[in-house]
Amino acid sequence: MPRVPERLLLGPGPSPVEPRVARAMTEPSLSHLDPAMMTMLDAVRHRLARVFRAGEDAFTFAVSGTGTSGMETAVANLVRPGSRAVVVVTGYFGERLVQMLGRYGATVTRADVEWGRACSPEQLDSFLRALPAPPDVVAMVHGETSTGVLNPVGDLCRLASATGAMTIVDCVTSLGAHPVDVAGWGADAVYSCTQKGLGAPSGLAPITFSRRAVESAAAVSPERGETHRSFYFDLNLLADYWLNRKYHHTISAPLVYALDEALDIVLEEGLDARSERHRTNHLALVEGLAPMGMELLPPPAERLWSLNAVKIPDGVEDAPTRKQLLDRFGIEIGAGLGPLAGRIWRIGLMGFGSSLDNVQTLTAALGSLLSPQIGRRVYQ
Amino acid sequence: MPRVPERLLLGPGPSPVEPRVARAMTEPSLSHLDPAMMTMLDAVRHRLARVFRAGEDAFTFAVSGTGTSGMETAVANLVRPGSRAVVVVTGYFGERLVQMLGRYGATVTRADVEWGRACSPEQLDSFLRALPAPPDVVAMVHGETSTGVLNPVGDLCRLASATGAMTIVDCVTSLGAHPVDVAGWGADAVYSCTQKGLGAPSGLAPITFSRRAVESAAAVSPERGETHRSFYFDLNLLADYWLNRKYHHTISAPLVYALDEALDIVLEEGLDARSERHRTNHLALVEGLAPMGMELLPPPAERLWSLNAVKIPDGVEDAPTRKQLLDRFGIEIGAGLGPLAGRIWRIGLMGFGSSLDNVQTLTAALGSLLSPQIGRRVYQ
Repeated sequence: MPRVPERLLLGPGPSPVEPRVARAMTEPSLSHLDPAMMTMLDAVRHRLARVFRAGEDAFTFAVSGTGTSGMETAVANLVRPGSRAVVVVTGYFGERLVQMLGRYGATVTRADVEWGRACSPEQLDSFLRALPAPPDVVAMVHGETSTGVLNPVGDLCRLASATGAMTIVDCVTSLGAHPVDVAGWGADAVYSCTQKGLGAPSGLAPITFSRRAVESAAAVSPERGETHRSFYFDLNLLADYWLNRKYHHTISAPLVYALDEALDIVLEEGLDARSERHRTNHLALVEGLAPMGMELLPPPAERLWSLNAVKIPDGVEDAPTRKQLLDRFGIEIGAGLGPLAGRIWRIGLMGFGSSLDNVQTLTAALGSLLSPQIGRRVYQ
Repeated sequence: MPRVPERLLLGPGPSPVEPRVARAMTEPSLSHLDPAMMTMLDAVRHRLARVFRAGEDAFTFAVSGTGTSGMETAVANLVRPGSRAVVVVTGYFGERLVQMLGRYGATVTRADVEWGRACSPEQLDSFLRALPAPPDVVAMVHGETSTGVLNPVGDLCRLASATGAMTIVDCVTSLGAHPVDVAGWGADAVYSCTQKGLGAPSGLAPITFSRRAVESAAAVSPERGETHRSFYFDLNLLADYWLNRKYHHTISAPLVYALDEALDIVLEEGLDARSERHRTNHLALVEGLAPMGMELLPPPAERLWSLNAVKIPDGVEDAPTRKQLLDRFGIEIGAGLGPLAGRIWRIGLMGFGSSLDNVQTLTAALGSLLSPQIGRRVYQ
């Protein structure tokens, strides 16, 4: 293979892989049914449950795919044709939930919020009260990667659950970086990815289902023609593999080793210390960007710590600046998505990538690139 | 993470990972949209097309999941609710195709063949002639991993295509080990995995779609409510990522590096030389097992070279012998599936694992374990 360039990954994910995690991937291969693999999967399940803060009776595991496969697993198992679903849409990944729920046959009602703002409990409350019938499912995104917004999903879940609905929460950009409290929220299906806050490469999607979600999926009867549409994402078959060692698919050994090692690192640091590190470095970035006239899109109280949506200053070109950052400094940051394309950059400080060193490296590089463009020296 | 035991992987997959492939995975991480990653994905596409022997106008890439995700991608994009599908069932993976096609709404007719035998062109021909209406899709398995049978899919595809049907071919256990000739067969959707004949870890599913299959999937109109059920497996979105660099999911960099390096190795060896190596070592295994009274399930002309379905001799215990093989010798072989559980072992000689050394190591270990069980010395 060709030589791979070294990058400092400060975009919306993947984040830099921990060196210990990279080494773990070179351990000898085990098959998907090896007793040593099954022991490791049990340990992964239990530690993932701690990181999610999922209840004792939840079923927590990892789907063999990226974060999007986690979203599809949540949707495929909680929705039937004709289900009434509400999606809190605060950005691109809320839109993706709308699409996916629609594909699985749900009738979707959108609770739209201005891009760049969180959904307040009051907004969801009045939205839910105005519905003609209570929803079966309410889906929402914790850390909206497209806008850098953190939604108050604990409050939103409580409101949704009070209507009797099941709740789906996307924690792709929050797990391992922000406090996540699945049991406290009372959420029914919560998924994430490995390549952001957890510091591993992509390829597995940690996910947890509440007991009532598992029971609801288990009640689907193939005899009555009620099979889930997806075989790969069928919770019953996945549980048969993870819990009963029954073959379903060939899980990727190096990805399991990577996740296993990443979870060790997360728990050695401690969940609270890890969140605090993400908060501190986020604040350092905000401070470092201010002298360049760069501000964040969301108001301070609604900001993600793992992903900073930064408004591109007037007079600064989007794509050419990102290209220079990559070519001259080897630093990757992300472009805006959808209506925010050309208007924001997305700067990730996630997992192993959330460090003061990286904040300083980035702000220095940005300073040297932006000074000529905006006609004054903006960083020293 | 705990220490991982060393195993000699001679089961139905995963096969041993090439050392060069394991090293490739430790290269620095690239994001899914990095220009260097997109260049590598282009190179992966072109070399995968050579390994599949797919046509110039086919769309060849890899799904971010295991071989089963490749199967689901083929099915999800070629089938609509109400499609008439025929599945040639020669074992467990034919059964899986029946299930998956049914889940995606097809009306499935089974062409059942005795487990342990290939489907002959005459059998399929008379089956197709007896149908009340021509099928929309005919699905079949090239190397049936559950029975060790190689189906003559070239002839079967020609018969199926003559009815106007699209064809789906499962090459999970044949790609990189047996001659695969997608263009010659005229097949419409052909998928495989990375962890068998190609010698990489699992986690990606190489797949190729003919031009008419791509056009058929592209003709599905979201405006008319005709979206594919799956978002993760939607061919249009996957093509947008692989060809147009539009974000769909975060492909796993180490898995891409592994596949890239594995394809280098496959093409350095040469497709014909690689198949011949698999054939030779398969024959050496058959010869090495004969003195122990161990015979293969399928007749000689219908045998896979990559996966040997070996009848367990009378008086030999299945699970305890496999456990001893694993615990005392560190060798993994596979159990029988479904009706063949307890009746056969599945011995894989795939990719890097197909070597005379491995044949000798395994037959020596089996000899020392079986001699006391069957009351005579069976190997020296």
